[in-house]
Amino acid sequence: MNKSTQLKRLIQSPTTDYIMEAHNGLSAKIVEEAGFKGIWASGLSISASMGVRDNNEASWTQVLDVLEFMSDATKTPILLDGDTGYGNFNNARRLVKKLEQRQIAGVCIEDKQFPKTNSFIKGEAQLLAPIDEFCGKIKAMKDTQQDEDFVVVARVEAFIAGLGLDEMLRRAEAYRQAGADAILAHSKRSDITEIESFVKEWSGRLPIIIVPTKYYMTPTNRFHELGINLVIWANHNLRASVNAMQNISRKLYTQQSLSQIEKNVSPLEEIFRLQNAQELESAEEKYLTGLPFEEGSE
Amino acid sequence: MNKSTQLKRLIQSPTTDYIMEAHNGLSAKIVEEAGFKGIWASGLSISASMGVRDNNEASWTQVLDVLEFMSDATKTPILLDGDTGYGNFNNARRLVKKLEQRQIAGVCIEDKQFPKTNSFIKGEAQLLAPIDEFCGKIKAMKDTQQDEDFVVVARVEAFIAGLGLDEMLRRAEAYRQAGADAILAHSKRSDITEIESFVKEWSGRLPIIIVPTKYYMTPTNRFHELGINLVIWANHNLRASVNAMQNISRKLYTQQSLSQIEKNVSPLEEIFRLQNAQELESAEEKYLTGLPFEEGSE
Amino acid sequence: MNKSTQLKRLIQSPTTDYIMEAHNGLSAKIVEEAGFKGIWASGLSISASMGVRDNNEASWTQVLDVLEFMSDATKTPILLDGDTGYGNFNNARRLVKKLEQRQIAGVCIEDKQFPKTNSFIKGEAQLLAPIDEFCGKIKAMKDTQQDEDFVVVARVEAFIAGLGLDEMLRRAEAYRQAGADAILAHSKRSDITEIESFVKEWSGRLPIIIVPTKYYMTPTNRFHELGINLVIWANHNLRASVNAMQNISRKLYTQQSLSQIEKNVSPLEEIFRLQNAQELESAEEKYLTGLPFEEGSE
Amino acid sequence: MNKSTQLKRLIQSPTTDYIMEAHNGLSAKIVEEAGFKGIWASGLSISASMGVRDNNEASWTQVLDVLEFMSDATKTPILLDGDTGYGNFNNARRLVKKLEQRQIAGVCIEDKQFPKTNSFIKGEAQLLAPIDEFCGKIKAMKDTQQDEDFVVVARVEAFIAGLGLDEMLRRAEAYRQAGADAILAHSKRSDITEIESFVKEWSGRLPIIIVPTKYYMTPTNRFHELGINLVIWANHNLRASVNAMQNISRKLYTQQSLSQIEKNVSPLEEIFRLQNAQELESAEEKYLTGLPFEEGSE
Repeated sequence: MNKSTQLKRLIQSPTTDYIMEAHNGLSAKIVEEAGFKGIWASGLSISASMGVRDNNEASWTQVLDVLEFMSDATKTPILLDGDTGYGNFNNARRLVKKLEQRQIAGVCIEDKQFPKTNSFIKGEAQLLAPIDEFCGKIKAMKDTQQDEDFVVVARVEAFIAGLGLDEMLRRAEAYRQAGADAILAHSKRSDITEIESFVKEWSGRLPIIIVPTKYYMTPTNRFHELGINLVIWANHNLRASVNAMQNISRKLYTQQSLSQIEKNVSPLEEIFRLQNAQELESAEEKYLTGLPFEEGSE
Repeated sequence: MNKSTQLKRLIQSPTTDYIMEAHNGLSAKIVEEAGFKGIWASGLSISASMGVRDNNEASWTQVLDVLEFMSDATKTPILLDGDTGYGNFNNARRLVKKLEQRQIAGVCIEDKQFPKTNSFIKGEAQLLAPIDEFCGKIKAMKDTQQDEDFVVVARVEAFIAGLGLDEMLRRAEAYRQAGADAILAHSKRSDITEIESFVKEWSGRLPIIIVPTKYYMTPTNRFHELGINLVIWANHNLRASVNAMQNISRKLYTQQSLSQIEKNVSPLEEIFRLQNAQELESAEEKYLTGLPFEEGSE
Repeated sequence: MNKSTQLKRLIQSPTTDYIMEAHNGLSAKIVEEAGFKGIWASGLSISASMGVRDNNEASWTQVLDVLEFMSDATKTPILLDGDTGYGNFNNARRLVKKLEQRQIAGVCIEDKQFPKTNSFIKGEAQLLAPIDEFCGKIKAMKDTQQDEDFVVVARVEAFIAGLGLDEMLRRAEAYRQAGADAILAHSKRSDITEIESFVKEWSGRLPIIIVPTKYYMTPTNRFHELGINLVIWANHNLRASVNAMQNISRKLYTQQSLSQIEKNVSPLEEIFRLQNAQELESAEEKYLTGLPFEEGSE
Repeated sequence: MNKSTQLKRLIQSPTTDYIMEAHNGLSAKIVEEAGFKGIWASGLSISASMGVRDNNEASWTQVLDVLEFMSDATKTPILLDGDTGYGNFNNARRLVKKLEQRQIAGVCIEDKQFPKTNSFIKGEAQLLAPIDEFCGKIKAMKDTQQDEDFVVVARVEAFIAGLGLDEMLRRAEAYRQAGADAILAHSKRSDITEIESFVKEWSGRLPIIIVPTKYYMTPTNRFHELGINLVIWANHNLRASVNAMQNISRKLYTQQSLSQIEKNVSPLEEIFRLQNAQELESAEEKYLTGLPFEEGSE
């Protein structure tokens, strides 16, 4: 089953599923090996890993290059956090072509304006995209995709912008009619009440995706009860790695020695395994007849 | 003081200094904030983070793109682990131009053949570069650099290839005469004996750099006694992050909840701080007069 | 004299100067060899050469990659046709950093909205950027540049948008106060009357740049009389090459033979000369001692 | 029919067919519109257009970026002049994956060593790749391709290296047995005698491809008589464009006026047509409901 079909079924399945953030080929493989059925290519995490801000400072093709490594390293479908689609409908439909070429399973776009701002930094201050314009963008993307299962998720920022439930419903419905495959309902409250209010009125017209970064204390069974289709752990690999790297860097700076470090980091062999070094060794035996490595030397 | 001058002084200083690995803009900033005076842009770590192997699977310009983000995110000098220079003398001198353009302070090249193999996977099996050819490469690089302090380090793989001390000395001396600024003496033994034997015969003709990944139990004061100029912690940020990401991914997969996760990862605000989000907010006040954010709304 | 200083003096000089379009490293070198003192890196030509539209279909870093080749191939200052700066003030100031890193001498931005449309396709139909927003963008760019001579040109699209002389003057004056180094007054009329009306009222407050693509019949001495500082031949290398390639392709398709073609194309040796192949041959003699080419074999 | 299948049939067809060089998206489209059934993505032309040398100065991913634009702009199959495969068997098989992802129909590799030298500059002086190593590379590439019709052409440089007919035949046969889909027999003589000698002994064991750049006076019917399967006009679009750009640049530099230029270059409208601007105008009507262009304004 191709990656788009896998992702589409994951989203349409009535059970609550979970996907996890990755930001490069390595973390994508780690997410896959942990057992997740999908990978969230987070705009925040990818930009942060590059050392730039989540405001389209990296170009969309720089993001695409990261995605290509992620897709090549895994068999699990990837859903891209595609910001606003990086411009207007024409940029967004061009993005779809490039994503499909790289076997990215789907993309989520949000109804903000380019260049975007992270929803947790600028919240109410940001102007949303006009509904008509955003619907045109969704239509253009759906008309462009070649694989009928490629997924376009519409992320609605009405709650983030402080516009309330009515606007949230109005936008979600418009995006549904424009052809979106799912609605990502975003909230920055520390509880799930906004999402609950939306879910009740929405009545399952399309699958619902949530990102509980801010309402992280919500118990899992609440997601199940609400019938949420997909939950995204949106940035936790990046945040775990920052924590770990800051700790190890400080320790090494202070201790000036590896002797107490080795046991706290993955063995070198684990890195080689993740890179699939073994496959290359086999291939060398097959394709490098005597060259450039001497026979029998290891 | 520009970055190349900083790096050159660090290497030439008689005291033992330490630099640490980074593999993207984010980890580079973490190394800098920990206090290190230099950053090691590791070929293994950069390739692993991309999800490819340490065999020049990523092109040299893909590596360059990563370096540009690393350099832009920091003020600390970066020493690139430049493999073989990615081809012959012409590729290597072209690399120098591109590195200087991006304010990379120096590059270390190793006397292997393109495409390279990681020294800890293929060791004795690999053929080294002919000495004359490698000397021509060093000369070409030194003749190309515009900043007189740009650093070219010659990494000698004679011990790795099982060729013994005489070959090690012969090569190091040839590379010194060709213009190298320092010798990186590499060893994959679990003790420091090979390095010791080299240091004694070498007698300080050029600064010595070591990478104690395999002889990690060697106590710090041994480096001092030997008069090692620079010690590289070569891949420990990557290995710490792999460990952390595998743990958090497994936990999240099993627990299906963030409630026990939040305290084990860096806060979102720490990510925003590392991205320097605050500077953009100030800049928006200065340059975005009323647009596109509404005045007084946050 | 560095490239930015060269360009700044060219623009500030009271005599009428001319620069010509290039769209890759090769055409940039051809412009330089023809004697021009500056190179116009045309957005239309670069996008057309890639086979995409002049609507920001190529990402800004893809354009940057082309510029890097252009800058590396020449010593003549390059002025980039930078569309809208590829987003808001933050994207535009980031662009300045990247351009300076690649020794691009200056950039021209136009007061449209991202993604842009070619001024000769959509004219009056397009909405211009709010003046305040565009002034903030100019200020941010000027505050970012490290080389005090880096040039920021403000291209005013008021005539193109059908808004008349008053709006043209109002915008030009605002951009001047915001810090622009020159005004590019654009017109799509087939005569120079709009430009004349502007020049008279402007009274030399800042240097004026024009692009007579549409009013190509205007005699040269009219530019001199008006005191135009810089005239841009904006897309003629591209258009000459299209004409030539269409002719040769059709001929070769029909004739199925090179015998009548050779005399109509540049000799292969001219291509090698433009690539500076001779320098590599000299360098090989210097740096490739016996390897990999056999001695005395040619 | 997909592009690989088109190319494979073109090569396997007993009639003599012709393909023509392109070096970017624009020239690829021009080749297609002229009627050619295939496009030769020339390494010399692509490097020259960038302003660098034909010695792997551009990285293989920079070439890949050009190919992606070429493939996106056309429906005609593209055969890449892939130099040596940009390294060893592992680099070459990685290349195949990346080419297939971008719908490039096939690749031609030559039995030289990385980094390559242009065959018309360094001829006899260059060492060829060991036969075994090159066969391993071909096998690795054929084993990697997903589309069974993806084409791998083996270019034999024995004549170029001055090694004679026996070596030419020995290598061609070895590459055939390794899985190559066709043999590109290269010669730098000004007559076709070397090729003739090869064709006679070869006896049609695999399709033969030639590049008559140096023996351009050979009449077409000679190709037919010899049963050549494919003839490549390898660099003539680039050479035509250089000639045209040098002429127009010199004229404009001297005349300082467009008045005599306009008739010698393609109209601007032809550039817009080649970029398919019309499609975007239609799409704007469909997807941009009222935004950002005002209704009825043009």
